[in-house]
Amino acid sequence: MSSTPVIAVDLGGTKIRSGVVEGAEVTHVRSAPTPARLGAHAVLDAVAELVGLTMATATEHGRIPQAVGVGSAGVIDPRNGVVVSATDALPGWTGTNLIAELQHRTRLPVRAVNDVHAHALGEARSGASADTSDSVFVAAGTGIGAGLISHGHLVTGRNSAAGHLGHIPSGFASDLRCPCGGMGHLEAIASGPAVLEEYRRAGGRAASSTTTELAEEARAGDTTAREAFAKAGRALGSALGGMANVLSPEVVVLGGGLVSADELWWPYLERAFAAQLIPAVRGLTPQRAELGADAALIGAASLWDGADIKVEEK
Amino acid sequence: MSSTPVIAVDLGGTKIRSGVVEGAEVTHVRSAPTPARLGAHAVLDAVAELVGLTMATATEHGRIPQAVGVGSAGVIDPRNGVVVSATDALPGWTGTNLIAELQHRTRLPVRAVNDVHAHALGEARSGASADTSDSVFVAAGTGIGAGLISHGHLVTGRNSAAGHLGHIPSGFASDLRCPCGGMGHLEAIASGPAVLEEYRRAGGRAASSTTTELAEEARAGDTTAREAFAKAGRALGSALGGMANVLSPEVVVLGGGLVSADELWWPYLERAFAAQLIPAVRGLTPQRAELGADAALIGAASLWDGADIKVEEK
Repeated sequence: MSSTPVIAVDLGGTKIRSGVVEGAEVTHVRSAPTPARLGAHAVLDAVAELVGLTMATATEHGRIPQAVGVGSAGVIDPRNGVVVSATDALPGWTGTNLIAELQHRTRLPVRAVNDVHAHALGEARSGASADTSDSVFVAAGTGIGAGLISHGHLVTGRNSAAGHLGHIPSGFASDLRCPCGGMGHLEAIASGPAVLEEYRRAGGRAASSTTTELAEEARAGDTTAREAFAKAGRALGSALGGMANVLSPEVVVLGGGLVSADELWWPYLERAFAAQLIPAVRGLTPQRAELGADAALIGAASLWDGADIKVEEK
Repeated sequence: MSSTPVIAVDLGGTKIRSGVVEGAEVTHVRSAPTPARLGAHAVLDAVAELVGLTMATATEHGRIPQAVGVGSAGVIDPRNGVVVSATDALPGWTGTNLIAELQHRTRLPVRAVNDVHAHALGEARSGASADTSDSVFVAAGTGIGAGLISHGHLVTGRNSAAGHLGHIPSGFASDLRCPCGGMGHLEAIASGPAVLEEYRRAGGRAASSTTTELAEEARAGDTTAREAFAKAGRALGSALGGMANVLSPEVVVLGGGLVSADELWWPYLERAFAAQLIPAVRGLTPQRAELGADAALIGAASLWDGADIKVEEK
């Protein structure tokens, strides 16, 4: 484990979060809204400002971070820091060279990786998948993303695009249009927005605009809401059971906003997962992520570890 | 590439095939039936006999193989050569220490790996996935198996059980029982035996007992047979498109008996594959395996390479 403090940044479509990471310890956490609509340069400036503020308070407390690790939304090539592609949540983000732009602004060495990959690295560093070399991390929230680790190596694939778990076919989504444009993908039934849509399609009346609100309706007795969560859990559990048969990981870890739906979702996921397993994989059970939002910070900082899980070194 | 000749063995439930491998060249190929019903010791004796005969002819031709590489049916732990599990096709195979037993019998150093994994390694060594570090190899025949390579490393997972691609849920198999006991798995609609069963379920009249025979019926105008092949192609293509979104490989390679169904199967697979791809992965197309049955021999021999694709070294 690294003993030099690193400034870590978790950069999403709506929020930037930063902190100082030393081993598994996260301190001096700050956050700021992402000025996404103002374009890539405004976002980079906002990140640099947050890094500057974090550096200032860390220094006051006698810690001198020597580097920056970034987990960012979008497909990020960790070898050169280029944003290979990004969704409309960050207009103009595609093509940005995160490393060059942030090194220029912060005058610190920078490394970068996709944010879900950062989450996976964090959980593997000191969370639910610590001390394993083959793991599957899944973030179930606005989308369904994954960070796969095989033989202690983050699976990035061609173009660093690996991990799009939301875009495998799901029998639960048969005739549903996916945000990617495809038909029948897992994300169209198992993501947070998909739960809300399924509720509306099934005739649900509550005006919930988040899964947290809809979970309250479900707990207050709205059976249509309960069924939407259950269906999302079954769809994801079933898909993950199949992935477990293909990858035979030591552990499957679930993070993201939907985990807080808890008893409305988890038991359905668990049961559907178990039902898929072949004898060679049987006994594996999904685990909850342990580090919450800090996982992405710990994972982004771990890019400077030179230890444990490796990221690209072709 | 290795320049020392290696004796390679491809050990299946019905046939044992051996040859001398030097780089990408396979010579002195022999084969013998697998005495599966006589138990593990009879199978090991038969392998050792074939290795002995291969050694004799190789020596006559001035080549002295120094080692044996085995690709075997069953889940094989390449670190110690133990058969972790096997199907009924090889009774008593589970628990066999392939390396110890064959070293004892042949007096040569032995390495071993699962046969589909050996195929994948062979194609990555000098076939359709040569010069790539991230590939998916799929064998579509009696079952649907895969060998995944990530960052130049064979994905083996916990218990070396990775690669059971036939056991992911498929919307095409919804209510079908899989040979593994599970419901709705890909293998229940996309394997060779599944094509024959689908044909019978759909009311097909021909008494074909192999997909080769059924393909003849299809080409002679049996539309029920045509539809069974097309459905298997769509199911596999769709599943593989989803896997491509998750793994973002450089290449997806198809081998196994069903590939010879050719125009009855391939175009449906290709189209269903393309329909699944997200923008980040678009443009990827499935490729046919190039080495045929020699792939497993080349892959098994490559265990002695110490180069290119790595197999387990935790």
